[in-house]
Amino acid sequence: MPPLSTDDINPTFHTVQYAVRGELAIKAEALRDELKRPDHGLPFDKVISSNIGNPQQKGLDQPPITFTRQVAALMEWPELATLAPGVFPEDVVERVRELREEIGSIGAYSHSQGVPFIRKSVAKFIEARDGYPADPDHIFLTGGASAGVSLLISMLISSPTSGILIPIPQYPLYTATLAQHKGHAIPYHLDETRSWSTPVASIEEAIVDAKKDGIVPKGLVVINPGNPTGALLDEETQEEIVKLCEKNNIVLLADEVYQDNLHLRNTHPFTSFKKIVSARKSTVPLVSFHSISKGVSGECGRRGGYFELTNFSPELIALLYKMVSVNLCPPLSGQIGVDTMVRPPAPGSASHPQWKKETETVHSALASRTSIMASRLNALPGVSVVASPGALYLYPRIHLSYAAIKAAEEAGKAPDAFYALALLDQTGICVVPGSGFGQKEGEWHYRLTCLCPGVDEYVGKLEKFHLDWVKKYGMAEKQ
Amino acid sequence: MPPLSTDDINPTFHTVQYAVRGELAIKAEALRDELKRPDHGLPFDKVISSNIGNPQQKGLDQPPITFTRQVAALMEWPELATLAPGVFPEDVVERVRELREEIGSIGAYSHSQGVPFIRKSVAKFIEARDGYPADPDHIFLTGGASAGVSLLISMLISSPTSGILIPIPQYPLYTATLAQHKGHAIPYHLDETRSWSTPVASIEEAIVDAKKDGIVPKGLVVINPGNPTGALLDEETQEEIVKLCEKNNIVLLADEVYQDNLHLRNTHPFTSFKKIVSARKSTVPLVSFHSISKGVSGECGRRGGYFELTNFSPELIALLYKMVSVNLCPPLSGQIGVDTMVRPPAPGSASHPQWKKETETVHSALASRTSIMASRLNALPGVSVVASPGALYLYPRIHLSYAAIKAAEEAGKAPDAFYALALLDQTGICVVPGSGFGQKEGEWHYRLTCLCPGVDEYVGKLEKFHLDWVKKYGMAEKQ
Repeated sequence: MPPLSTDDINPTFHTVQYAVRGELAIKAEALRDELKRPDHGLPFDKVISSNIGNPQQKGLDQPPITFTRQVAALMEWPELATLAPGVFPEDVVERVRELREEIGSIGAYSHSQGVPFIRKSVAKFIEARDGYPADPDHIFLTGGASAGVSLLISMLISSPTSGILIPIPQYPLYTATLAQHKGHAIPYHLDETRSWSTPVASIEEAIVDAKKDGIVPKGLVVINPGNPTGALLDEETQEEIVKLCEKNNIVLLADEVYQDNLHLRNTHPFTSFKKIVSARKSTVPLVSFHSISKGVSGECGRRGGYFELTNFSPELIALLYKMVSVNLCPPLSGQIGVDTMVRPPAPGSASHPQWKKETETVHSALASRTSIMASRLNALPGVSVVASPGALYLYPRIHLSYAAIKAAEEAGKAPDAFYALALLDQTGICVVPGSGFGQKEGEWHYRLTCLCPGVDEYVGKLEKFHLDWVKKYGMAEKQ
Repeated sequence: MPPLSTDDINPTFHTVQYAVRGELAIKAEALRDELKRPDHGLPFDKVISSNIGNPQQKGLDQPPITFTRQVAALMEWPELATLAPGVFPEDVVERVRELREEIGSIGAYSHSQGVPFIRKSVAKFIEARDGYPADPDHIFLTGGASAGVSLLISMLISSPTSGILIPIPQYPLYTATLAQHKGHAIPYHLDETRSWSTPVASIEEAIVDAKKDGIVPKGLVVINPGNPTGALLDEETQEEIVKLCEKNNIVLLADEVYQDNLHLRNTHPFTSFKKIVSARKSTVPLVSFHSISKGVSGECGRRGGYFELTNFSPELIALLYKMVSVNLCPPLSGQIGVDTMVRPPAPGSASHPQWKKETETVHSALASRTSIMASRLNALPGVSVVASPGALYLYPRIHLSYAAIKAAEEAGKAPDAFYALALLDQTGICVVPGSGFGQKEGEWHYRLTCLCPGVDEYVGKLEKFHLDWVKKYGMAEKQ
């Protein structure tokens, strides 16, 4: 009998692409294994995974927020409160008592939509942030934001002509999920020359073009702050986007997982789309996503997040509930993580001073690294990068010479992938080529995270690599 | 603008059904809320969720395995080892040291396929169980078995004519997942008159019938021990099943999550399909699923499990890896849970005596409850139940009178749902009607878990309810 052939499976398994963990990341893993051999002969002694926003990974080692971990540890083994008296701060003990009263054991399945008590805490967090009411029954806790995005996109793909508007550059979860559910990605371009702003006219054009091709735009993805761009929307643009959704009967999918990652001093604050929609009393169906993987908590491994539905009918919410119930419930460790994110230690509580110190350290380290990296990358010949105020990334544009492009062609690689592979081979730094996020024809970028602790040594490697590259392939001709 | 209509969404959101958390479970939640009111006027003082195998839930409160939770707590907050010296047994401290060396922080994303070190432990567990080699690269850690089942079923649905063979009765995850991915469920019937055995001839018939209808059987689901039936396959039947897959070029999906839940003394041991396939040197592609949610650990809330691929090409494994990478990684708390399940404390270690006592208690409590429940239910007029050796459930058949069936029709309910709703209303016990799992035309069943601690009081309620029912609707006429 022949084994199962790759032709005999769901065709979406071939069309899905996810560059963040693609060719470069797989090669980085292999190099990491190679480094374990004493005679490896590689020109570096460690691999730095700048391909993924994973602050607590080995080598980056951003410390977790102590309060979060104390609550988690005590939830795992509540007897510790008596076995190790005085080790846990009072407010941690109290938080765990409260959570256990609601949840019981974290080894039990919870409500499929997430623990009701934690959803209430999320609702209060949203109310305090926006000044408008939030309903715990309209909130779904999820195993990271990705799980929610996948669910909502699958809901909106109602027919083979359904499409979702996606920013370019985008986080490739969106195109991957659309490929999985056989929906069309309808690209609209962000404007690099205006600090990666979102030109609403470009969304309108994309809608018109899609309709010409017989594609029906069902949803609009906005990532704010942007990934990979780090751009932060202003309220005026947000209003225009909501109006556009109203006019075109489009569901707004607001990826707001970086809402707590703002690191430039003179930036306006983050405004949620929930606030804009509420203030306008708009009827636009809105889904807003949040996560514990980013922000200051960086708790990627717990798999925790939530989405809030606005202007969704009870029937739709019931259908979503049914769909999530098939997978029983999001991981309790992630749900507990959401609770500590939306309800950090209050001022005056035992844990507050340490929490404050830890979060400030994370914020300021990210701010300083981002600023140093942006200015030094910008100083390189043939590199330009927008120093955006948000998220965890930079998305430098690299201007490549014809010689470099030709060499890439000969190697059978896209020019930016060719650049990124050379960077990995020579420095051990793993980034993601711009082709994974999308870019204009003939432009080349890469995304790297701003998480590496030894920023000076790290940027030094990037600089040396790039200067050697320019020496080898020459400067880009005028374009 | 009109809000998003329920007609304007993915049609699979309407076709998916998942009775385990369906109408009955939703009503049970509502009743639980009602009980909080002092003047509730309900004829019971607690709701007992026998609809779902969730051993640690409130009210059932099966205690977790201490070793598992100690490891988890120390992984969350490693400083505890020095802050609370002597509180953690030596082998726990050593296990955490070992895991942390491999993983680093559990707040980081891991390898998308699961921590390589934990996959190695799983491979050793499989080798020790079966006596045949297992490859860590062919093992995927997952967020519970459900996540893996969903992934593999979506892989096999290659066209609108693809189908998967499903036992009837089945665990409704299978039909729900098939509905989600627009695949056909091809039912084959288990034989209740022969203790829910699996007649291979009935699978063959189902294949022939499917092909007549233009459906291509791509996979065969076998649940062993069975859910909801609890039946345990013998090796002869397993061999026949493998031969049938060979002959028909079908992928075997072995749901083996209850492999550690065997509670009748004179039963033969569990044999994995991996062992049968390996012994035969068969080329049948096999996926076998396991989970930390069942067995003695009952750690449902952690969301941990794995699947092992046998006879899958490296290309297929790479495609599966790409698909799971879009969702980044399974929750670390679940991965750690898999590690402690497949590597329990060794004899002679500090934690072994307690671990042994705790697991034996869980096993014997389940055995005694299952036996008491089966014999008392069998003593009721119009009830018959197979006292199966495995899993956590009983699946009694209820013989209903015409009067009862007519009353159900008038209420617009299936007769078994009507029975289950009455049971919930009168006793607070929530079970799942047989229609959620599948049954022969004109037969009625329900599934209930054998997890309730106060078995005497619990079965007493079931008995009283049933006898009142018979008084009201009469005995079933001869069928």
